[in-house]
Amino acid sequence: MKDVQKERDSRNVTIDRVGVRNLSYPIVVMDRDSGTQCTVALVSMSVRLPHEYRGTHMSRFIETLEEYQGKVGPSNLEALTERLRSKLDATEADIEFQFPYFTRKQAPVSGIPGWMRYEASLFGACRENVFDMITGVGVHIQTLCPCSREISSYGAHNQRTMVNLRVRMNELVWFEEMIQMVERSSSTPLYTLLKREDEKYVTERAYSNPHFVEDVVRDLAVELNGDRRITWYEISVQSAESIHNHDAFAELTRDKRGLNDREGSVNRT
Amino acid sequence: MKDVQKERDSRNVTIDRVGVRNLSYPIVVMDRDSGTQCTVALVSMSVRLPHEYRGTHMSRFIETLEEYQGKVGPSNLEALTERLRSKLDATEADIEFQFPYFTRKQAPVSGIPGWMRYEASLFGACRENVFDMITGVGVHIQTLCPCSREISSYGAHNQRTMVNLRVRMNELVWFEEMIQMVERSSSTPLYTLLKREDEKYVTERAYSNPHFVEDVVRDLAVELNGDRRITWYEISVQSAESIHNHDAFAELTRDKRGLNDREGSVNRT
Amino acid sequence: MKDVQKERDSRNVTIDRVGVRNLSYPIVVMDRDSGTQCTVALVSMSVRLPHEYRGTHMSRFIETLEEYQGKVGPSNLEALTERLRSKLDATEADIEFQFPYFTRKQAPVSGIPGWMRYEASLFGACRENVFDMITGVGVHIQTLCPCSREISSYGAHNQRTMVNLRVRMNELVWFEEMIQMVERSSSTPLYTLLKREDEKYVTERAYSNPHFVEDVVRDLAVELNGDRRITWYEISVQSAESIHNHDAFAELTRDKRGLNDREGSVNRT
Amino acid sequence: MKDVQKERDSRNVTIDRVGVRNLSYPIVVMDRDSGTQCTVALVSMSVRLPHEYRGTHMSRFIETLEEYQGKVGPSNLEALTERLRSKLDATEADIEFQFPYFTRKQAPVSGIPGWMRYEASLFGACRENVFDMITGVGVHIQTLCPCSREISSYGAHNQRTMVNLRVRMNELVWFEEMIQMVERSSSTPLYTLLKREDEKYVTERAYSNPHFVEDVVRDLAVELNGDRRITWYEISVQSAESIHNHDAFAELTRDKRGLNDREGSVNRT
Repeated sequence: MKDVQKERDSRNVTIDRVGVRNLSYPIVVMDRDSGTQCTVALVSMSVRLPHEYRGTHMSRFIETLEEYQGKVGPSNLEALTERLRSKLDATEADIEFQFPYFTRKQAPVSGIPGWMRYEASLFGACRENVFDMITGVGVHIQTLCPCSREISSYGAHNQRTMVNLRVRMNELVWFEEMIQMVERSSSTPLYTLLKREDEKYVTERAYSNPHFVEDVVRDLAVELNGDRRITWYEISVQSAESIHNHDAFAELTRDKRGLNDREGSVNRT
Repeated sequence: MKDVQKERDSRNVTIDRVGVRNLSYPIVVMDRDSGTQCTVALVSMSVRLPHEYRGTHMSRFIETLEEYQGKVGPSNLEALTERLRSKLDATEADIEFQFPYFTRKQAPVSGIPGWMRYEASLFGACRENVFDMITGVGVHIQTLCPCSREISSYGAHNQRTMVNLRVRMNELVWFEEMIQMVERSSSTPLYTLLKREDEKYVTERAYSNPHFVEDVVRDLAVELNGDRRITWYEISVQSAESIHNHDAFAELTRDKRGLNDREGSVNRT
Repeated sequence: MKDVQKERDSRNVTIDRVGVRNLSYPIVVMDRDSGTQCTVALVSMSVRLPHEYRGTHMSRFIETLEEYQGKVGPSNLEALTERLRSKLDATEADIEFQFPYFTRKQAPVSGIPGWMRYEASLFGACRENVFDMITGVGVHIQTLCPCSREISSYGAHNQRTMVNLRVRMNELVWFEEMIQMVERSSSTPLYTLLKREDEKYVTERAYSNPHFVEDVVRDLAVELNGDRRITWYEISVQSAESIHNHDAFAELTRDKRGLNDREGSVNRT
Repeated sequence: MKDVQKERDSRNVTIDRVGVRNLSYPIVVMDRDSGTQCTVALVSMSVRLPHEYRGTHMSRFIETLEEYQGKVGPSNLEALTERLRSKLDATEADIEFQFPYFTRKQAPVSGIPGWMRYEASLFGACRENVFDMITGVGVHIQTLCPCSREISSYGAHNQRTMVNLRVRMNELVWFEEMIQMVERSSSTPLYTLLKREDEKYVTERAYSNPHFVEDVVRDLAVELNGDRRITWYEISVQSAESIHNHDAFAELTRDKRGLNDREGSVNRT
């Protein structure tokens, strides 16, 4: 049977990334508290395609995933990405996993536990024998508006706000630690299960602790700047304003390795 | 060229609805304040298919829309739906338009105007010569939690809440009127543009006017019960709780025409 | 601390459903092949709220879920729903779980296995001591257009099509069985991993087996009509047409228990 | 009334971008064929926030938009972005508009016209007195798999594929021209309205013209390389494979101005 993908291509165009996306796969991830947890990932896998080949071999992407039987974590991501690169005979390979990540979280006063959902991601890239990894968390928090509180005789508008944090690290930082950093930068963290005494606590805490989206970015940046394990970070904060139909947002990317601070800003272009 | 759709089908299965969906089309809708407004609709069109025919003729759905040159409103929906029914030679036809609908809205104190987006919908059904129309609006409002306010020494959690209202009427009720009914049932309406004096007003108004999702449903139900033009309604309220990662919701359907009050509840099953 | 929810309400409006929605929770579901599988559900839980109470107690919804430690299946859904009803002291309670459901699926010729994602759902309702359960699957298939094949000298357009099937049953029908029924009604099932010999097989099978969305509905209806375990069904087929920017769809609801065949059609209104 | 935003901030963190997002606004855009068209945009607007200020003034973003009365196009984007920058007293400002864009498109044989929806975007950035603009289109096409066609005795799988193209230019390239470039790189363009003779034509054309996602990227790259008006481009092609549950994709970014070809690849990290 003819292998059309292997045909020579004469257009002289090397393609940055070719692969599969929106592949949903059950995975098992490392978990600080209980060893591992089962979850469901959205997977993206790709390779650089040299100009002389017409196409890549899509089935090998899935085969690579199968070889690892869905076990995924910061500790084996390099091996997995490198395996993809070599199996596809490519100079570069990228893999990204995005998945819900759950922790048991106790209500702040009653102590009653419930499962709390966070978003997590792992991105690995092999390029010319250099491996690069980015880990990410998405955390819903509350922000209570400092301006609204200051100018109003009573009350203050507040809302659910999504914080996405991605980091490069030179030593393991657990998803749980990244989540805690984000939650410390909020007016109040969210909880799945709150009894009345908890709701009182959370309400008063938020009112005592007003945060613009700008404040969330800065509190988080200060903490990340002080953590030696983290070498690069990208913060995105977006709040579903409860007085508007649109969102407020703030974003910051910083490379602590002495490179250009503004590197992240090309992300948009 | 053979017309496969016209082939006789022997499986003896009449199909409730066959048609097109997720068709995006520019439309012009009636607007109380300025005559008409241009917008972009998501359109769904379908007919009942008798058991003896293999398929429907999809291109005729688009042709029907083209005949009306995108002019859509409560006043011509019956003609449009009936035209679809007859053009497809069917006993029943349904059409639904969902579209953003904008009004100029002034900030409550400064009076500065901005465009405010709402969701609107028109649903028409011809069945055995009876025409049925449902009009709908989707309105973001703020709800401020009465429990949080009552038990906390200061502050109260509040959030953006979506209200979907659909009604059957025996006399024209404008989208603008339906939107106002929803906004009157809120802790405070939302605005696109608020200066500081407006933000103070909106914050204090919400704090003085706490609403559970249950309160929004009931305030709205009381108003709809008292409006003789409205013969049936369906209310859905969903709030993006600012202390949780999940939403609170409340729903009520009521037929004022003396039919079974609970009719709406089969909608879920 | 005052219980605002317990306050008497004077508006005289009973609310059909009040509860939580978009709650993401890790669950363990029964699995025909391997006993159980871990997955992540989107949960909706609600109760009927009598007119005399101001609000429901949202935290009890989560507590009910916690009592069952996330174990969910057709065999315990009634107990879970009834527990929710009694814990909330309500006359009616509804629960719905929607979750990805994976099976190992072998490529048709090479036999190489991979994980295949399906959508699954469980809906339970306790109403006046009557329990009602609906189970559902969402299955992507391929449809190849019979008209395109017939009128063209070569080729035929085909596309990814989503089939949603929901059933009421009087005897257990596994998710796996429902999935197979849907896949038998397709031009070809989909696979996660296909080698070239598999791709040839799948391509030729689809070309030999053209299906309109109407054909999928009818093939599936004929099969469901002949299965005595199934007492009611709802079929929705939607294809992302590869020659258009919009979708084609067909829908059929049928109650085999001798009730009105058209009952399902009120679902849209 | 106190201006909290103007307070001095001591955390010493300059923020890359602060602003509003998911703002839906009616706009009027330039249209090659009929002068202008009304549509609905999703708007994102932001500025760089110096470390010494606590917050930005969100209402001024909306006021800037109001000044232009929703008139938006490549010809006034620089003025609009510069106005935002100066009004917010910032060193940098970004604006992005994303909106559906419609053209009248005739069926290839019958010539019957219908509205065809495309996605369009305009991105403007003022940075230190340098203005940068990127225009984009999103176009659904069909791709028919060359491998499937080659190895199968009859038929070939094909599917709806989304192509996103973004370009920087030194001379006006209309949205319509960008759309045509994308459609020329397809197995066949899509149409809203097709009669049977058109469906035959489209089916046969696709079968005669098989394209991997890789081929779409390369055909488009060759055309863009040859167009002197275009100085930079980013191509993303994603196909909803009709034999799989996941998508295939290919991406390429190229800067023709002699800068590093691989610049675009940091977009993912």
